[in-house]
Order: sequence, then C-alpha cells, then structure tokens
Amino acid sequence: MKNKMKKIVMDKSNLIECHNRIKPYIHNTPVITSTQINNMTGAEIYFKCDNFQKMGAFKMRGATNAILQLPENKKRNGVVTHSSGNFGQALALAAKSIGVKAYIVMPSNAPEIKKIAVKGYGGELIECESNVESREATAQEIVKSKGATFIHPSNDNDVILGQGTACKELLEDYNFLEYVITPVGGGGLIAGSALAAKYFGQNCSVIGAEPSVVDDAYRSLKSGKIETNSTTKTIADGLNTQLGDKNFPIIQKEVHSIIRITEDEIIESMKIIWERLKIVCEPSCSPSLAAVLKNKKFFNKKKIGIIISGGNVDLNKLPF
Amino acid sequence: MKNKMKKIVMDKSNLIECHNRIKPYIHNTPVITSTQINNMTGAEIYFKCDNFQKMGAFKMRGATNAILQLPENKKRNGVVTHSSGNFGQALALAAKSIGVKAYIVMPSNAPEIKKIAVKGYGGELIECESNVESREATAQEIVKSKGATFIHPSNDNDVILGQGTACKELLEDYNFLEYVITPVGGGGLIAGSALAAKYFGQNCSVIGAEPSVVDDAYRSLKSGKIETNSTTKTIADGLNTQLGDKNFPIIQKEVHSIIRITEDEIIESMKIIWERLKIVCEPSCSPSLAAVLKNKKFFNKKKIGIIISGGNVDLNKLPF
Repeated sequence: MKNKMKKIVMDKSNLIECHNRIKPYIHNTPVITSTQINNMTGAEIYFKCDNFQKMGAFKMRGATNAILQLPENKKRNGVVTHSSGNFGQALALAAKSIGVKAYIVMPSNAPEIKKIAVKGYGGELIECESNVESREATAQEIVKSKGATFIHPSNDNDVILGQGTACKELLEDYNFLEYVITPVGGGGLIAGSALAAKYFGQNCSVIGAEPSVVDDAYRSLKSGKIETNSTTKTIADGLNTQLGDKNFPIIQKEVHSIIRITEDEIIESMKIIWERLKIVCEPSCSPSLAAVLKNKKFFNKKKIGIIISGGNVDLNKLPF
Repeated sequence: MKNKMKKIVMDKSNLIECHNRIKPYIHNTPVITSTQINNMTGAEIYFKCDNFQKMGAFKMRGATNAILQLPENKKRNGVVTHSSGNFGQALALAAKSIGVKAYIVMPSNAPEIKKIAVKGYGGELIECESNVESREATAQEIVKSKGATFIHPSNDNDVILGQGTACKELLEDYNFLEYVITPVGGGGLIAGSALAAKYFGQNCSVIGAEPSVVDDAYRSLKSGKIETNSTTKTIADGLNTQLGDKNFPIIQKEVHSIIRITEDEIIESMKIIWERLKIVCEPSCSPSLAAVLKNKKFFNKKKIGIIISGGNVDLNKLPF
C-alpha cells in the first residue's frame, strides 16, 4: 500500500500539479548563458539560476510543496525540520507565506547569520546540541508537544517533487537539452530533476556532480545500497548530507551517472561562474560546471542544463 | 555649425535610432528586485543589471554606437582609445563584433588580467607609460600612423547616446519610475540616462551617486564649471575619471542632483547587493544604492531605477 502510494505521487501529473500548486509562492527563475564558458567547455550550457529563487535557493520549492500538501488540521499545528542550511530558511519562509507556523531546529553553535535568517523569515528557532541525536530528538519533541509535522529536507516525496520543478521549468523553455547536471547532497534535487527530465525532456539524461570527499551517492549507485560518508570536510557544505530511502530508488532508476569532483575543482569552477556569469552562487552549485570542465570530450557540443542551486554564501568566508 | 550638430544628435529620435542601431550587438539586460532591499530602504527599487551586458558593463553600448556611426572609410582604419578599464574591453569587443580593428592604449603597469581581457576580445594592445601625457600621445600616434579614429570613453555624443539605452530599456519596461540613480564617473552614463529619462520617462528625475573623494561632478554642478579631482583614491576605480565638455552641459541641464558617498558606504552597499541580489557587481555600481540608504526619508515609498553598471571585478581583491 505504501509503495503504491509512492508510485502515484511520482506520476507526471503529480509533478504538473505540484508545480501549479507552488507557482504562486516561487519565482520561475531566469536561465543565463555565457559565450565564454561555452568556448571554454566546448559545450552549450544553460544555467538555471535558482540562486535567484525566493530565500536564495531551490529548497524553497520543495518546502512550499510539502507544506501545501498537508491537510488543514495538520497545517494548523505547524511544521518542523532540523537544518542549519537552506532548508531551515526555506521552510520558515514557505510557512510564513502560506500562513503556517514553522519550528526550525538548529545546533546552538550554528553561525549567528543563519539563526538571524531563520528568525527573519518568521521561523521559531529551537536550539539543540551539535549532533544528529540531539537534533532528531529535539525535532521529535516538537512533533509531540506541538503536534507539528516533521518535514525532511530531502527524503520526502513532496519535497522531491517540489525540487523537480526547477528542472521542469528549464526543460519547458529549453526542450532540446541532452543533459541536465545537478549537484548531489541529500538527493532531493537530483531525484526531482530526474523525474522532470523523464517526463518533460526529449531523451534528456540527468547526471549528478558530487564532491569526492562526501561521495556517498556515487558509492551507493555502485553498491546498490545507501552508503554513508566518513568525513564532512567539503567546502560545498550544502552537499554534506546523506541519501535517503525515498530518493535513492529514483536516483538508481533514473539518473545517468554521478561524477566526482575534487575540492580544488569546486573552487575553480565557482570562480568561473562568479567571474563569467556575474552571479553569486554557493560552493555547492559549482560541481556541476566542474563535471563538464573535467569531461570535455564526453560533453563536446552537447546541450546541457545546469541547475545553480543557491546563492546564500558568507562573503566574509570566500575561498578566493 | 558644430553646436547645431550636437543638438541634433541629442534628439529623442536619435536616441531611438541609436538603440535600434546597437540592438543586434547588445543584450537587453534583466531587471531584478529584492523584497529585502525594499524593506531595508523603504523604497521600491528596480535594478537594471548591466553587469550582465556583453563584456560585463554598460560601456559596450556606447562603444558599439560610436563605431557604428563611423563612415565606412573610417571604419576601415579602425578605432583607438586609452582605457585600462571597461571601455578598452568594450571597444575591443564592439570592434570585433562589427568587424573593425581596435587599438587599445594601456599603461604597461596595468593589471595583467585587463591586458589579457583586451587581447581576448581581439583588441591590439598598445602599451604606454603610466601618465596622462603618455597615453594621450600614444593614442594620437595611432591616429596619425594608422588613420584610426579616436573614441573617448565618456565625452563623446555617440558614446553618451549609447550609454543612455540602458535607462531607455529600463523605462520602457517600468515607465512609472520617479527616479533613476546612476553612478557618476566620466559622465557618459549619467548624461545618457538623463536624456533617456527626459524622453522616455513620465516625470522621472535622474540623480547621480559619486564617491566623496572624487566628487568633481558634485563640485562642477555647484561651481558651474568643470572641476578636477586632486586624488584618485576610491575603491570605485571606474568612477575615478573626469567630466568632459560634451556631457557636462547635459548633466547641468538634465540631472536632478548628485549625492556624495563615502568609501565605507560604497563597500557596505556593494555587500548588500551581492548578498541580497546574488549578483557580482563592481564597487563602481554600489554608490547608487548607498544614495538611497543614506537618504531614506527623501526616497521613502519612491519608485526608483538603479543602473548596475558593471560586473568586472577581481575576485582576489574583494573589500570583504
């Protein structure tokens, strides 16, 4: 029964309905190109700029869909998540836009700027200790005490569908794309993009770009089971997360391949994006361009979409 | 006779013709907004993003128009300018697009990255000593030896008209703007914008934003004659230039006022633009937002256009 439901949620019609549902709350973000980057790579690249999305990242899409899918009685009790990154801010802003209460669990040692951002978007900040057990336990406490619904940042079918709408918009405007490349962290964006490419592309393959030092998705695809990371030391902090049982089967079935990217390659391609596209993006965005730069032969003359996932960076801590 | 010609060039129809002439060579750049910046300022601001212009700055507009206005026999001998900044790159790329030779005079101690950029756009780099006399003499030598036409970066009617097309595009999309704010350097952008606001705005005033340490335009408006700067020490290096006899009369007649901005205000507003708009812009762009931030009462609830003039920054030398 559960599996059956899961299948239905991931239909083409559900992706269309999801998109229509969230449209009033999100931007259809612009797509930009650069002759210089095309010359540099030998490919034809279309950058879908979700750094210009509300609150600065694609996470706004999935967070909005997940809240809108709740029945009214659940909406009344609010939503809760644990995230010190973009999803916490996204859930806070999405909840505020929809008129729902959001509780965001964050370690007390999280950067002050991120705490301020969550509160700025109207979220109630709940501090916890800086470990997985504490943040999960704290979130569960809110679920119990407030009746709030827990929303996972990436391993949730409604979140996955929402994240897929960036790729859907991209393919609606550029239906000739042969590849779409997304970064891989928790797996929500790439799973949603793979569904969008399947339903809205014309023979369009989705490729993941993942930091080598946290390559759980690459290894999971090889082994056929969800692998974990032994380190968290990547500059692409948004990708320092784990695949889940809801997005992994989609990735297994629908994703072409995953390309691993070194830390130096991440910084180099981030600099190229800033210099050539004149946009501010997170280190977590840049593996996708790095994947093209290190596989020029494979991507030669190919028409490629790249999802720029977010633009929330600390300008005082740039790697260049 | 000369004055009569000048007058004709600055007609509304000439601005329209100029825009039509350069359209195939330039981007109609996007306009973006930020709820957060609007909340912060109390105004309603529309940012016209010429950092996304070809070669990364509005200078592409004026350079293109100046070359296209040359008769065929002059085009054959090429164009020459002295500029270590965006205008040199703009003239090189515009010339290349049109199929004309460009000679760019630059001090031999100019940053290597700027020399490479000019050559990358197909310009012939002519090095000179690092002083005004040497660069002017070197440019004049090229005029004599090659028959090339000298094009001034800002004090040229065709350049002024071309620069005005950014504001024209902005007002065509947002005709309700009450103010347009531009940075003031050599005076080409603000003079062109003032003409565009006069011809295409509905009671729209143009205000200049100028670094306090190089406030020649502010002082020139006060004294009624062209003043000079005694220092060049502004982080907004693109604004470290001098008004000229062609743009000053337009500025005198058509510009509402000039607001002076401190170096700290330039850096602070640059950071706000990067963080909130998620775009890479030059320090020379940010005085315009700073002008609003320091005059919140005056600009309260006003609908304001701000021209983001360029995005060519050295990421290794950021002020934050």
